[in-house]
Amino acid sequence: MNNSVLSGITSPRDLKKLNSSELQTLCGEIRETIIETVSKNGGHLASNLGAVELTVALHRTFNSPDDAIIFDVGHQSYTHKIITGRYADFNTIRKKDGLSGFMRPDESIYDAFVTGHSSNSISAAYGIYRANVMLGKEATAVAVIGDGAMTGGMAYEALNNAGGKKSKFIVVLNDNKMSISKNVGAVSRSFMRLRNGKRYHRLKFAVGNILLKMGFVGRALYRFINKIKDAARSFVYKNNIFAALGFNYLGPVDGHNIAAIESILEIAKSYDRPTVVHVVTQKGKGYQPAEASPNDYHGVSPFDISVGAESSSKTSFSDVAGKTLCELAQNNNRICAVTAAMTYGTGLDGFSKLYRDRFYDVGIAEEHAVTFTAGLAKGGMIPFFAVYSSFLQRGYDQVLHDAAIADLPIKLLVDRAGIVGEDGESHQGLFDVAFLSTVPNVNIYSPYNYSELVYRIKATAEDNELAVIRYPRGCEGYTTDIDFKNDYTLVSSGANQAVVTYGRTFSYALEAHDKLKNFDIIKLNRVFPIDRDVIKLISDYDNVHFFEEGIRSGGIAEHVAARLFETGAKCRYTIHAVDGVFVPHQSTAEALRAFGLDTEAIIKAMEL
Amino acid sequence: MNNSVLSGITSPRDLKKLNSSELQTLCGEIRETIIETVSKNGGHLASNLGAVELTVALHRTFNSPDDAIIFDVGHQSYTHKIITGRYADFNTIRKKDGLSGFMRPDESIYDAFVTGHSSNSISAAYGIYRANVMLGKEATAVAVIGDGAMTGGMAYEALNNAGGKKSKFIVVLNDNKMSISKNVGAVSRSFMRLRNGKRYHRLKFAVGNILLKMGFVGRALYRFINKIKDAARSFVYKNNIFAALGFNYLGPVDGHNIAAIESILEIAKSYDRPTVVHVVTQKGKGYQPAEASPNDYHGVSPFDISVGAESSSKTSFSDVAGKTLCELAQNNNRICAVTAAMTYGTGLDGFSKLYRDRFYDVGIAEEHAVTFTAGLAKGGMIPFFAVYSSFLQRGYDQVLHDAAIADLPIKLLVDRAGIVGEDGESHQGLFDVAFLSTVPNVNIYSPYNYSELVYRIKATAEDNELAVIRYPRGCEGYTTDIDFKNDYTLVSSGANQAVVTYGRTFSYALEAHDKLKNFDIIKLNRVFPIDRDVIKLISDYDNVHFFEEGIRSGGIAEHVAARLFETGAKCRYTIHAVDGVFVPHQSTAEALRAFGLDTEAIIKAMEL
Repeated sequence: MNNSVLSGITSPRDLKKLNSSELQTLCGEIRETIIETVSKNGGHLASNLGAVELTVALHRTFNSPDDAIIFDVGHQSYTHKIITGRYADFNTIRKKDGLSGFMRPDESIYDAFVTGHSSNSISAAYGIYRANVMLGKEATAVAVIGDGAMTGGMAYEALNNAGGKKSKFIVVLNDNKMSISKNVGAVSRSFMRLRNGKRYHRLKFAVGNILLKMGFVGRALYRFINKIKDAARSFVYKNNIFAALGFNYLGPVDGHNIAAIESILEIAKSYDRPTVVHVVTQKGKGYQPAEASPNDYHGVSPFDISVGAESSSKTSFSDVAGKTLCELAQNNNRICAVTAAMTYGTGLDGFSKLYRDRFYDVGIAEEHAVTFTAGLAKGGMIPFFAVYSSFLQRGYDQVLHDAAIADLPIKLLVDRAGIVGEDGESHQGLFDVAFLSTVPNVNIYSPYNYSELVYRIKATAEDNELAVIRYPRGCEGYTTDIDFKNDYTLVSSGANQAVVTYGRTFSYALEAHDKLKNFDIIKLNRVFPIDRDVIKLISDYDNVHFFEEGIRSGGIAEHVAARLFETGAKCRYTIHAVDGVFVPHQSTAEALRAFGLDTEAIIKAMEL
Repeated sequence: MNNSVLSGITSPRDLKKLNSSELQTLCGEIRETIIETVSKNGGHLASNLGAVELTVALHRTFNSPDDAIIFDVGHQSYTHKIITGRYADFNTIRKKDGLSGFMRPDESIYDAFVTGHSSNSISAAYGIYRANVMLGKEATAVAVIGDGAMTGGMAYEALNNAGGKKSKFIVVLNDNKMSISKNVGAVSRSFMRLRNGKRYHRLKFAVGNILLKMGFVGRALYRFINKIKDAARSFVYKNNIFAALGFNYLGPVDGHNIAAIESILEIAKSYDRPTVVHVVTQKGKGYQPAEASPNDYHGVSPFDISVGAESSSKTSFSDVAGKTLCELAQNNNRICAVTAAMTYGTGLDGFSKLYRDRFYDVGIAEEHAVTFTAGLAKGGMIPFFAVYSSFLQRGYDQVLHDAAIADLPIKLLVDRAGIVGEDGESHQGLFDVAFLSTVPNVNIYSPYNYSELVYRIKATAEDNELAVIRYPRGCEGYTTDIDFKNDYTLVSSGANQAVVTYGRTFSYALEAHDKLKNFDIIKLNRVFPIDRDVIKLISDYDNVHFFEEGIRSGGIAEHVAARLFETGAKCRYTIHAVDGVFVPHQSTAEALRAFGLDTEAIIKAMEL
């Protein structure tokens, strides 16, 4: 690839020198670069292909890094990375020590804020904007947010805060007519009306002309109609969430026409009121397979460009969870399922088709999802909310306040628990055990393989308990035939040293055990609350290593340590966990190695 | 008081037999009961006085408990309690073993859901409603939500989920034109427009009649105008957040006219679409001092009815925090302050007046507040977000993802940390240390008196760190002259047993020490991360008691225990904390006694 224009872009300033034909060439080169790189490294494809022209127009209109441009979630920030001095490194994206797949201020001054979780961009950008105002800086801040992210309550809180006040604050709605899969909820329908809402104006002009020719009464009517007309225009242009929240609304504009986007952004810049610019883009634009089925190209693994991405044929924990729910639902009409815009990711696509009336995709809205699930439980259903570990962080208060105080028997299927790999810091599922084990009445389970997951889902559906079942991204590892029905399982016995662990780390412990055989394994099946008997059992060993794929502070290894210490246990005790740091992007295997949580680490610890 | 009508009401069914004059008498009796009781027990006054007629109308229109009626926050649920069989017990409200000041399903079948935290009622009610539909029950669910609670993102997530779908789901907007203090943000202005938006209709009828008399052209115009008219009505009736989210909108209606409210609720019941009923109420209605200054009668301590409530003249931790910020702001224009609808509660009223341009009340929106604060820090300010401990639970993900990953130096002033007393489970600040200490890069401080609070606020304003400063509700206790500038302070030395603690519990430890003198005290000044030296220091004692006014699981006592155990410390170690339960409403002193966290408990532990 030659990339004659792109190779000359070392900072956004260079963009401003290009003419329209060069810009068109540039966008083509950016698309090729993105497609080629994602086909090798995996990553987000469809969203990035949709945002090429929009990103170029933004960087031509604003002066980054003085003007902060924050791409919500950041999964569409690849063009931004490429044109802000990171083209040469772009082939390292999502690799260990390479570029992050999201915005990271420590990676570039052009990345104004950490992104990864949805719907925070307006809050962050408005904060930066107000700081500029207070410090007398002229610079502005722009939040670029997708229609999907607009289903998150934080975005609304931020709009409500920023709306109606004098300011030069700009929000760009990147409307690609879907969030991760198809968009849900009333707001998306509202955006659709906006996209299609140009008809009233033509009608208005035609009738106005007739009336003006009708003399006195006609003119009176014209004035009256003009009064109503304003209202009518309000309906077309303003009866949307943004206007209700005190924002100017501009658009919609074609998100693949750089000149058009720039014009509308210039108008927005001229206002002294907060303004939303509605840009309509096409997910997957420029790569036919992604245009045709953007869902399949949201986040992809490496693929052959000429063939296209293939969905993984391997069964995952998510698939097993989804299938088990279907099985349960067939025999029990109280079983229902909730997702926060992750129908496919959490393996619920089958359920969503088979049990449409018992399936709820509530949008990217984890707070609501938890409490809605609690309401379903209160109403007599057995509701499962399937959610990624790192996104459930949004629902901490709801688990605590709305579910746990009344001990409502909701079931949380916590997917992507533990290290997730290439998505990095924002997506690691390292905190769920720590934050959920602060909550009274919560029972946490962490199956290590598919049969345990199936067993646990079925068991918890029958128990009237607030249950969390957490499992990692991807496939089961090394498995063996053990009984996991009790709160813990002891594998082998008689050694003077033991590994205590749970979840997939148990597979690594088994592998290490096959090799060394000089230790016992205590597998926690119910991870929390901690069984008294297991404390007694552990205290009988001379040497105990607790391996926990999670944050140390507040994790189970600490809870166990405290109980042991209080009972006067004398064993040597070592905690292997992630201690006080965030885990950057790299493959899961690399991260587990780096943090001493794989088979090799267990062998090393037990050999001594 | 005779209360001739009220004393006959043992369930909501009894309400349906009353005629309009009896209803009027009833409402008067309810108001007197509320005023009298709150004047003795303290509690929420203005919001309850505003919701009397609305609550009576709701219970006459719906069939609770089959129809679930959920009062958002629940601080306006006193009338609901009085007319659902709890009149006789109403004088026990907020007392130990008495009625809760919020809704509690374990208190009454009429309390459909736990309330206390804002903006969750629509999610919960919609969950219950969908469960009814799935289980083939006819019953409905109604969320009653204030205009203040509508600034919370969860409410929006729930509306977005429920909107636009066929259902008989009803949301009642109890619009009293303020949340806890004056309402903020664009949504409240939008509600104001709705309250004042009746004019278009009169105009429309007048012109329509003229046109219909005008023959062919007139009739054509009439049809056209009717088309636009719909749009115009949209402006008046529908250009609001509810319509944008796919809800029918009915109102506004006078919230003190029972018949009017009932009519509009009956209309809402007849629809097959989700409907919002906009009810305008007056906070404090019926008690002149509360009508005149509803702010002062939001939550009150016991008072003399004939005189009125007096604001406490005692200085509190909140006051000291607010004053210290003012002092800092005077000399440093980078200091700014954020609150989530708690300007008064967090002591920021002075700051809000003196430094209006550097003060942000963002509404009941803790998620946005944290990330907005992070944006302010990113933009170069030194932002303090003052927030109640239990409400910060809503911002866990934002602290972790938006502030901590990039290590942005935001300052969280965590008020109401620890036991808060009569507000009970939902308001106890028992989790902040546990959930915040899971987050890398967070530094937690817990001053025990005013001078330490002042010192710590000033110190952290100068340090480029992500800092949490937490302090209890109310006033400082027993204080002494110690140096708290280091990470920990050792009080006395040479004993073989020690109390380790932080925050106000240190005051109790001092009192116990004055009496017994047989132990040393290790006071943690920086509570987290834990200093290595302090671990070494503690391990030298034979007998260590860690007193922690917080949840045990994930608290500092456990973190310390784990470090001690790993280093092979031999001391006897006992944790005194709240272990795996929620703390119900009672006075703070009663709760501290019940959970073994007061001076007596320390004496008892150290005497042994």
